[in-house]
Amino acid sequence: MPWPKYMNVTRFESLLAESNFDVVVASSLKNVYYTSGALIETQRRIPLRLALTVLPREGDPTFIVCNIEERHARDESPIEDIRTYVEFQESPIEMLADVLREKGLDQKTVGIEKEHLIATYYEELLQRLPKAKLETADSFLEKVRMIKTPPEIEVIKQAAIATEQAIFDAFAATKPGDQEKDLALRIKNNVVSLGADSIRACVLGSGSNSLRAHHTPTEKPLLKGELVRLDFSAYFGAYASDIARMAVIETVSPTIQDVYKRYRDIQRATIARLKPGTRACDAYNFCREAFEKAGMALHTPHIGHSTGVNGGHEEPMLHPNNQQELEPNMMLYVEPFFRDPNVGAYHVEDLVLLTEEGPELLTTYSDTQEIYVIK
Amino acid sequence: MPWPKYMNVTRFESLLAESNFDVVVASSLKNVYYTSGALIETQRRIPLRLALTVLPREGDPTFIVCNIEERHARDESPIEDIRTYVEFQESPIEMLADVLREKGLDQKTVGIEKEHLIATYYEELLQRLPKAKLETADSFLEKVRMIKTPPEIEVIKQAAIATEQAIFDAFAATKPGDQEKDLALRIKNNVVSLGADSIRACVLGSGSNSLRAHHTPTEKPLLKGELVRLDFSAYFGAYASDIARMAVIETVSPTIQDVYKRYRDIQRATIARLKPGTRACDAYNFCREAFEKAGMALHTPHIGHSTGVNGGHEEPMLHPNNQQELEPNMMLYVEPFFRDPNVGAYHVEDLVLLTEEGPELLTTYSDTQEIYVIK
Repeated sequence: MPWPKYMNVTRFESLLAESNFDVVVASSLKNVYYTSGALIETQRRIPLRLALTVLPREGDPTFIVCNIEERHARDESPIEDIRTYVEFQESPIEMLADVLREKGLDQKTVGIEKEHLIATYYEELLQRLPKAKLETADSFLEKVRMIKTPPEIEVIKQAAIATEQAIFDAFAATKPGDQEKDLALRIKNNVVSLGADSIRACVLGSGSNSLRAHHTPTEKPLLKGELVRLDFSAYFGAYASDIARMAVIETVSPTIQDVYKRYRDIQRATIARLKPGTRACDAYNFCREAFEKAGMALHTPHIGHSTGVNGGHEEPMLHPNNQQELEPNMMLYVEPFFRDPNVGAYHVEDLVLLTEEGPELLTTYSDTQEIYVIK
Repeated sequence: MPWPKYMNVTRFESLLAESNFDVVVASSLKNVYYTSGALIETQRRIPLRLALTVLPREGDPTFIVCNIEERHARDESPIEDIRTYVEFQESPIEMLADVLREKGLDQKTVGIEKEHLIATYYEELLQRLPKAKLETADSFLEKVRMIKTPPEIEVIKQAAIATEQAIFDAFAATKPGDQEKDLALRIKNNVVSLGADSIRACVLGSGSNSLRAHHTPTEKPLLKGELVRLDFSAYFGAYASDIARMAVIETVSPTIQDVYKRYRDIQRATIARLKPGTRACDAYNFCREAFEKAGMALHTPHIGHSTGVNGGHEEPMLHPNNQQELEPNMMLYVEPFFRDPNVGAYHVEDLVLLTEEGPELLTTYSDTQEIYVIK
């Protein structure tokens, strides 16, 4: 059967063959989109309105959606067997149990997304399939998605570059004294003009506001000498971007210049370490040690992450407990974070594609070697 | 202790006193924001990064957040007892179990959000608190939030009106031949300029695209005689708007004129029924019967819903199985949906505040009596 265009079908099929699962049931937006090709937008907003793909080891998949989404599913998904339920009147879990029974899988090993399925649905499933072996398939699906396909690489790359451009153009249009909100609005307008479907997150703070991990821009004016730190994400179709950039207002103090240089050198040196065979924890530890050598401290629990359908932090996460080896065609956002409580936060986030040869930096629209000065 | 400004504290305290819960634990963005006052934005995007409020029947609440969010939580929440965990190294569920043990509640009745907590965390909680009675508190919290406070009514109202204006102004700036995407971009830019923080959803389709429940705008041009149907939602702080409007391009056919008039009359007649004492199912059934009398069919499983923190469909939902009686200070979005497969979809969504006297229509920026014509 035809599979959706972004899916790594070869990897899915070979990992499924190696696994214990007789069937895998996807329920999160990211995995339902990945395996069905249909972006059921309401999965983002109405979590109780389940959409499910049923992916048996042998035989064809089934797609279960609320009847409101039927036309959408039929238009976008190559899956032919689409079943619909009426919200508030029929149970999607009952329909899932019926489909598994029909396929002779109700007493088999069923992989489900235990990191997505809510307790209510999980308890209902346990009750309706007392003889099934329900096992977590979250890591299995994550492992499939971890190696990107060429169309995925293209959409993730373009989203990142468009977002970088939106930020850079907004910096250029901003003057000292403008409000945090003005700068944020310019980025939002730019990114939508550059093809984004909507804003996913806009963290933006100046001066001490930059120290808050997820500051929402306010009417505070951008004052001479202050740091501005922003972390911006927008949806492009089912995927999303995630770019952090910094600027300083009018003048750069020697302290900021010095810390920025040390910070940015470490970010680039960490990127240079991202090669096939390097473990995620090694990249994290290298970065932490580089901070220590530079007389700075790394306080964050991770320094980067992959991305994929619906944005978000995907594996491999660059954190100290992750033994995962890096492989070609992984994509990584690299974003160490440093706080100087007296000045503000330092945060630059770039997108890297891993190739056989090593890391390829994709977000090169703006040159981050020197901190950007808003004049 | 001081509670957050939007919270219906009286109602929370009296319903908790009547309930079986010794403690309620909130975990979803909507309930954590509602009870803590801190908008932990990453709850929208990183669901495994738990934030939890622990709300005992007696004694002070506790707020558990990832250490990345600590500063944010301390700045925004009146809760004094804030505990932090390190992501990937410490378990937030273990911290929750410890807090409950410390408060002497680990063998008591603990209300949790079974419609939010994922199976993985739920299983961990069951294992860490073998003697607790874990019960679902979703409806309890929903019941608290159902009656809006004056500050909530104000923010929800202003969000709706700003969104209505953004749509109306975008209609006025649009010409026949423009693309679906052009119209969408105008609405997005307008709503951000009018104070929205980000776009939550933009469903917009012309002609047959309008029939798809959640169509993403494309490069298809808006052609003479076609219907345009859009359903737009934007975040304003922690709350969100949700407005559907329609237009027709250049000329209105007699069919569209006639069906629109019948559709819109039914929508208004349904709104007129929304009085304290009416049950949600009665409103739905009235609407369904009115469609039948008008020779039309209502196919959707609900005709409206309340709203609240994070937008989304909140109780009371106007569907045929909901016995909930309407009460003053509920707010309802009313949106019956009618499809003519040969023409397109009819969909107007308005916001109503229930008062002692009856329904107060809040979205009156644009007059929907006649269908808007884009010329």
